[in-house]
Amino acid sequence: MKPNTKPQPGTAEAPGEFPFTRGIHPGMYRDRLWTMRQYAGFGDARQSNERYRRLIESGTTGLSVAIDLPTQMGYDSDHPLALGEVGRAGVAISCIDDMAVLLEGLPLDKVSTSMTINSTAAILLAMYSAVAEQSGVPTKSLRGTVQNDILKEYVARGTFIYPPAASMRLVTDLLEWAAREAPRWNTISVSGYHMREAGATAAQELGFTMSNAIAYIDAAAQAGLHVDDFAPRLSFFFSSDRNFLEEIAKFRAARRLYARLMRERFRAHNPRSMKLRFHTQTAGSSLTAQQPYVNVVRTAYQALAAVLGGTQSLHTNSLDEALALPSESAATLALRTQQVIALESGVTRTVDPLGGSHCIEGLTDRVEEEAQSWIEEIDSLGGMVAAIEQGYVQRQLHESAFAQQQRIEGGEQKVVGVNAFRSQESGPQVPLLRIDPARESRRRDRLAAFRAARDRGRVQAALDALQETAQGTGNLLPAIRAAVRAPATLGEISDSLREIFGTHE
Amino acid sequence: MKPNTKPQPGTAEAPGEFPFTRGIHPGMYRDRLWTMRQYAGFGDARQSNERYRRLIESGTTGLSVAIDLPTQMGYDSDHPLALGEVGRAGVAISCIDDMAVLLEGLPLDKVSTSMTINSTAAILLAMYSAVAEQSGVPTKSLRGTVQNDILKEYVARGTFIYPPAASMRLVTDLLEWAAREAPRWNTISVSGYHMREAGATAAQELGFTMSNAIAYIDAAAQAGLHVDDFAPRLSFFFSSDRNFLEEIAKFRAARRLYARLMRERFRAHNPRSMKLRFHTQTAGSSLTAQQPYVNVVRTAYQALAAVLGGTQSLHTNSLDEALALPSESAATLALRTQQVIALESGVTRTVDPLGGSHCIEGLTDRVEEEAQSWIEEIDSLGGMVAAIEQGYVQRQLHESAFAQQQRIEGGEQKVVGVNAFRSQESGPQVPLLRIDPARESRRRDRLAAFRAARDRGRVQAALDALQETAQGTGNLLPAIRAAVRAPATLGEISDSLREIFGTHE
Repeated sequence: MKPNTKPQPGTAEAPGEFPFTRGIHPGMYRDRLWTMRQYAGFGDARQSNERYRRLIESGTTGLSVAIDLPTQMGYDSDHPLALGEVGRAGVAISCIDDMAVLLEGLPLDKVSTSMTINSTAAILLAMYSAVAEQSGVPTKSLRGTVQNDILKEYVARGTFIYPPAASMRLVTDLLEWAAREAPRWNTISVSGYHMREAGATAAQELGFTMSNAIAYIDAAAQAGLHVDDFAPRLSFFFSSDRNFLEEIAKFRAARRLYARLMRERFRAHNPRSMKLRFHTQTAGSSLTAQQPYVNVVRTAYQALAAVLGGTQSLHTNSLDEALALPSESAATLALRTQQVIALESGVTRTVDPLGGSHCIEGLTDRVEEEAQSWIEEIDSLGGMVAAIEQGYVQRQLHESAFAQQQRIEGGEQKVVGVNAFRSQESGPQVPLLRIDPARESRRRDRLAAFRAARDRGRVQAALDALQETAQGTGNLLPAIRAAVRAPATLGEISDSLREIFGTHE
Repeated sequence: MKPNTKPQPGTAEAPGEFPFTRGIHPGMYRDRLWTMRQYAGFGDARQSNERYRRLIESGTTGLSVAIDLPTQMGYDSDHPLALGEVGRAGVAISCIDDMAVLLEGLPLDKVSTSMTINSTAAILLAMYSAVAEQSGVPTKSLRGTVQNDILKEYVARGTFIYPPAASMRLVTDLLEWAAREAPRWNTISVSGYHMREAGATAAQELGFTMSNAIAYIDAAAQAGLHVDDFAPRLSFFFSSDRNFLEEIAKFRAARRLYARLMRERFRAHNPRSMKLRFHTQTAGSSLTAQQPYVNVVRTAYQALAAVLGGTQSLHTNSLDEALALPSESAATLALRTQQVIALESGVTRTVDPLGGSHCIEGLTDRVEEEAQSWIEEIDSLGGMVAAIEQGYVQRQLHESAFAQQQRIEGGEQKVVGVNAFRSQESGPQVPLLRIDPARESRRRDRLAAFRAARDRGRVQAALDALQETAQGTGNLLPAIRAAVRAPATLGEISDSLREIFGTHE
């Protein structure tokens, strides 16, 4: 039986047409599936490289690099503040040689690579493109994403280094540089995910994310960029949380809200500037340590909501993520979840299959309206940078998180295995990934060798040139790229910028 | 955010109103969740009783008794033809004492019990009500279901004993007796499930099931029953298979088709006669022995489709069912799947949440039309009994099954782990349930003791009386009930009827 894909008479809107409620492409998954992009990375570059190769063998279609906390905070693996955190929440990348090992044997001309990196996004992008060029793949043809969404770090994630103004300059410089030099690279992934995980409601997630996007677009405009020059490379990152119907509606509302925003507020003319492209991750906060196999079920529904909502890219959480980093078998099962949706469920054969549903259309309208009112609230406070400085967004997230916690503790919101259907029996033992504790000393030895082999004068000259640029108003990217190849380490580059920009506590 | 539940202007139909496309109750799961009814049973009555107690502890809300093949075929556990099959596909029940052990400590005044039994349905129902009465629960208040759908046994499942005419008499007698004596008991579960598993398309599943229902209703009318006297206790049993959207549409189409059929063809006046109530089981045939944890994902989507389609009762398959009978941990995880839908996904807060979707409404219309044309085809052959005797339905199922097999073998239809994304790695070891091979000899000993303790004269008299009734036209149920209490065994009762009715090969 062939599903009905034509819009019915009386339906005003078709997929692929402004305001894109029903999808940014007319054919959606009938023409091309979403990118199955499993977030992964741990230990050193070699271990992570092996995991990526396995994921590609298992059918993943995009890479997503998890990066450890020290690297995100601009510290090399041998920095005293890195102790205990090296390679723990992601892979440690301190220098261009680490990046070369991370990418060894991966088809950089074909695969798209997302890196969850913000304060040090420009440094890792510089390393990535340098390694790609060394292997014959020009930067102009590279496909991927740096998260580079610093504003949400101040409210929900915490990996900021510099004060907001300097951070915004780094964001804008990357936008401007990539628009010219890496035109297929997504320069920002404006991320609602972490705000949602920190407690935001669906409408807050959407509204605050849009307010962050507005701040970046405003900053780029102030730097003299035209909206249509960089907006086609803006991308988004949302959570897909518990509430199946509301999440589907949220994704539809996001497209419509963004399309109107770009056309009406920012006067974009290029239709590509109006199309909201987004990555989705299933909600880590919905997973439970109790009865971990139930997480397979939760993730399955959240993944389906993302697909029914028209995501461009999807990470499905592994069942063991409330206990440890994903083991290989758990990560494979999470990927298989996406493959079952794609190949077995049949939902890819119809574009926006729930469009027209009274419930879904009603929810889409309401999430959009409520998100719009959050945007207006942030506007009235002087925009997102000001709202963050006043602590407004942080307070809103805290209140929502508290309210949700109250609902769970009061039993009004049920969580299977936590406040409902608790049981001792948790199914077969979940094999957990253990990270070798000797990794940190190995990293220190490796970095010592790297530093010793360098031309110290050349490194210092590149760092001096970077500081000079930072003191002026020029684009920082060329100087960062030169420093990476000198080769300076991530920590050295970050320290040089700390001296000029100062830090934010 | 409160979902929109009111029908929009322009929507002709509201849930709870004829023809019930959007649900048989106005409030659906907002008022009462579906029954979580996990099919279970293996080994002897004691083992199965323990499993039921565990399932009730885990939050199952209805029992579903799997019965072994010998019991379904009218052979006691000590019959030579039972060898190797006793307690294998379900529990062995040969006598009233077995039933007493099976039900020990279960709240028969509260729980509803479904028994997958057809040729010997009247015997097991007689045993069930006798045990209930012994424990003080009157038959009038018993809630449950016997499958009692013999027609589909001839085409797809195979547990028939007698020729079709005698089988139809047993069905009709049960209908008639229960309408008077067990008014809360569902007297038939007209089952599309096994035809679907044998290869039927969604529309064939619906069409052939309705044609079977028509045959039962016609037979009851010929026996002098008025449609409104027994139709409120007819129930249905469908599969929820791979194709997520089509399955949701199928359930909606089923309600509409049945409502019109009952009002227009059978002139029912009682609205309860027009409301299609159905149990759903996720598709066993969709499960794979390869990478068995992927079955958790498949089952999750199929279960969600059943709920979005408005099922009254649901069994979710266990991940190990392609390998063995469900282990306890696998059965618990399958039940947790339903609990996540019920408590965490939020879909229960909206009635028929996909109603109005262009895709779902279009598919609903098409499945209904196609099913209607199968009904007309069966009508033109003289009804289902005639169609089965001509082998017509069997041929249609065979053709559909062959076509699907071709699509899988040709790679047009993908199955993850089978013809796509094969891998050696299958995740953590699945602990399989092993059935004690000594069970058969224990059963033989137990039955020998049971037989020895009886008053042989009383048993023989009851069996003689049953044969006398069978030779006439009176209702068989009272004689079967007397025989069960004599106490005759299931095999003895079946043999007595075989002598009168003959058998069907």
